[in-house]
Amino acid sequence: MDPKVKRQVLRTYTYGLYVVMCQDGDEVNGFTANWLTQVSFDPPLVAVSVENETKSLPMIKNSRKFTINTLRSGQRDLAGHMGQSALKKPDKLNGISYTARPDGVIIFDEGLAWTACEAREFIPAGDSTLVVAEVVDAGMVADGPSLTMAEAGFRHAG
Amino acid sequence: MDPKVKRQVLRTYTYGLYVVMCQDGDEVNGFTANWLTQVSFDPPLVAVSVENETKSLPMIKNSRKFTINTLRSGQRDLAGHMGQSALKKPDKLNGISYTARPDGVIIFDEGLAWTACEAREFIPAGDSTLVVAEVVDAGMVADGPSLTMAEAGFRHAG
Repeated sequence: MDPKVKRQVLRTYTYGLYVVMCQDGDEVNGFTANWLTQVSFDPPLVAVSVENETKSLPMIKNSRKFTINTLRSGQRDLAGHMGQSALKKPDKLNGISYTARPDGVIIFDEGLAWTACEAREFIPAGDSTLVVAEVVDAGMVADGPSLTMAEAGFRHAG
Repeated sequence: MDPKVKRQVLRTYTYGLYVVMCQDGDEVNGFTANWLTQVSFDPPLVAVSVENETKSLPMIKNSRKFTINTLRSGQRDLAGHMGQSALKKPDKLNGISYTARPDGVIIFDEGLAWTACEAREFIPAGDSTLVVAEVVDAGMVADGPSLTMAEAGFRHAG
């Protein structure tokens, strides 16, 4: 398999851009994700790939909760900002407006919509862990189109 | 959780449209999929959600091989056609042009690109099964943009 062709092919896949927020104890973190999809209607399940070498993965393993915030069209810079590693840029949430509910759901005030998830399974998947989670609550924040990887010009695939 | 809001929120997620092809013995089948994503760079892994009540799932469980064919922009009708259940429309591959390689890779002649996958894990996920697979080969068929759910106006989410 030619690695260049493999990369080109895997970049034909279509993705949106989301900020996954999590809380473990008093600590809140979030990261930009594109490798996620719904996987079942009944019950409503989603799957999110989270890189192993992140601050958020152990937080989600511990709390078993996270919130997927769908970004709005036009929020490329926000996606890029939240995509920085919290291990390298621990203050990346400064200036970011979110609402942390007492039940651990963290809603991005500038998002398009939010999906509150409870993790059901953690499946090792190479350099990442695939988290299968049940949708337990959801809400719209705004109207309009979602931010896509195509709009952002990002290439986190291949 | 309000089911209507949940549906609206889950439809803010962005998807492409693909035809997953499989072969078990002499039998070939394929279906339209949108719930799929890459999940690891190293090794290159993808995850595909396949409905349990399908002809293809037991075929993939048996052969452990499938091919993801990324559709081209403009192929909405083809996506709709291949999205029909093979259990209800067993002749749906009539008139569809594909190349079945001796190694079980089935390349959609009208696709944009193809990803040959070997299944590694089958994870029960509600009404579906999440298949985690390694990318073992890949190729481009054409140039141009991919078909997206947004372009097709399909709503297989919620």
